[in-house]
Amino acid sequence: MGTGPGDPELLTLKAVRAILDADVVAHFLKRGRPGNARAIVAPHWPENAIELPLEYPVTTEVHRHEQSYKSQIAAFFDDAALHIAHHLDQGKTVAVLSEGDPFFYGSYMHVHVRLAPAYPTEVIAGVTSLSGCWSQAGVPLMQGDDIFTVLPGTLDLKDLQARLGSTDSAVIMKVGRNLPKIREALKAAGKFDSAIYVERGTMDNAVVMPLKDRDDSPAPYFSQILVPGWKARP
Amino acid sequence: MGTGPGDPELLTLKAVRAILDADVVAHFLKRGRPGNARAIVAPHWPENAIELPLEYPVTTEVHRHEQSYKSQIAAFFDDAALHIAHHLDQGKTVAVLSEGDPFFYGSYMHVHVRLAPAYPTEVIAGVTSLSGCWSQAGVPLMQGDDIFTVLPGTLDLKDLQARLGSTDSAVIMKVGRNLPKIREALKAAGKFDSAIYVERGTMDNAVVMPLKDRDDSPAPYFSQILVPGWKARP
Ligand SMILES: C[S@@+](CC[C@H](N)C(=O)[O-])C[C@H]1O[C@@H](n2cnc3c(N)ncnc32)[C@H](O)[C@@H]1O
Ligand SMILES: C[S@@+](CC[C@H](N)C(=O)[O-])C[C@H]1O[C@@H](n2cnc3c(N)ncnc32)[C@H](O)[C@@H]1O
Repeated sequence: MGTGPGDPELLTLKAVRAILDADVVAHFLKRGRPGNARAIVAPHWPENAIELPLEYPVTTEVHRHEQSYKSQIAAFFDDAALHIAHHLDQGKTVAVLSEGDPFFYGSYMHVHVRLAPAYPTEVIAGVTSLSGCWSQAGVPLMQGDDIFTVLPGTLDLKDLQARLGSTDSAVIMKVGRNLPKIREALKAAGKFDSAIYVERGTMDNAVVMPLKDRDDSPAPYFSQILVPGWKARP
Repeated sequence: MGTGPGDPELLTLKAVRAILDADVVAHFLKRGRPGNARAIVAPHWPENAIELPLEYPVTTEVHRHEQSYKSQIAAFFDDAALHIAHHLDQGKTVAVLSEGDPFFYGSYMHVHVRLAPAYPTEVIAGVTSLSGCWSQAGVPLMQGDDIFTVLPGTLDLKDLQARLGSTDSAVIMKVGRNLPKIREALKAAGKFDSAIYVERGTMDNAVVMPLKDRDDSPAPYFSQILVPGWKARP
């Protein structure tokens, strides 16, 4: 079930019902950090539910293209699926929390593909961070027949620039340490001046500012850059 | 406020609160058709609220690139903004319903840009039809560093094919009479076999099927095509 991007009021009625009906509530978290999804649903946490935290084994120490990262991650998802299956086999209902929308780049999908062939599953759509961020910024990015592209900030400069140049509107995710490169690509594509930086969209202490006012220090995990493509307005 | 893609349970808590607090509820509709957004929120319709239907003046008779279409649409949004402003000037709160997420290709944005400079506004993010459709299909489209593109089915064949070829995952909206062309573009891009057709996603009588099982008759307004890009699975 999607929890939405951060504001606890952006939970759907369906998600609230699902968590209230759950025997077990599973959620992903990074070692040493309180789970964000868990915080979003805290007001609805079912009193007698079993909590199943699923802690990622790897952090930034191992590069994501290395084989050891891939096998660690695969083993983690296998293990997470086993833990969930253990409860399902006892006839329990498990709600798996997923920030934003579960299938929009969410970790839940890796558990889903492992369990859905064998167990009844339902994916409860959520509000993505995209919608959360552009709504909070008050800036519509796309209209009519516009093309919209979601780009990871990890693309190399030339690719990022070319893709920004050939789409009407875009959102760049995974900003982190890629900010200087993203800035350069946006300038080269002629889209720097209208770009907007959003940090912790819809959460407490959210930050919304023109990208040109943001320095080049690394961006936190919950950040993205909006690239409006909207020109001719009826 | 976003109403989500169709399932009334995909309303957010924030949207429910907004409609309950509204003095006036405005919604867009096409001539002769019951408004879909209105149906989604019907269970929460505030008893004493004033209803403000905003009826589109043009349908398919006029081509959208013609100047008369553009000026009719611009006059319509000017007029819609005036009607809403009339209530705001009396100190009333107006909730404007928007299917899915308001800023994701939604008509509300045209009213927003006219009113936001002069009145306090808040955009309540909603679940998009994208999330509704891929969740209902149970098919995750994108992961990790994948690129995701939203394409209008109105693009010409060559452009559609090239863009499908250069993105990892995509959703094609505005299917309508473009189905034969979309099919051809997907085939040429080598992505036809995995494409999924979704009609009325999350609504009653939703249809989910492999695109290859769908005939070429025109698709209804509420339809889209999912193009999964997910290959290497951890
Ligand atoms: C693994 S993806 C998960 C996306 C999530 N499932 C969704 O629906 O938005 C993580 C990326 O989402 C973006 N993100 C998630 N929540 C955010 C928020 N509240 N504000 C800004 N960006 C956010 C960041 O760009 C981050 O790199
Ligand atoms: C003007 S856009 C509005 C999008 C909406 N604001 C959203 O957030 O999804 C209309 C397009 O959305 C798609 N659409 C909207 N609701 C849908 C649904 N329930 N099922 C399938 N497609 C839908 C169709 O492709 C249609 O051409």
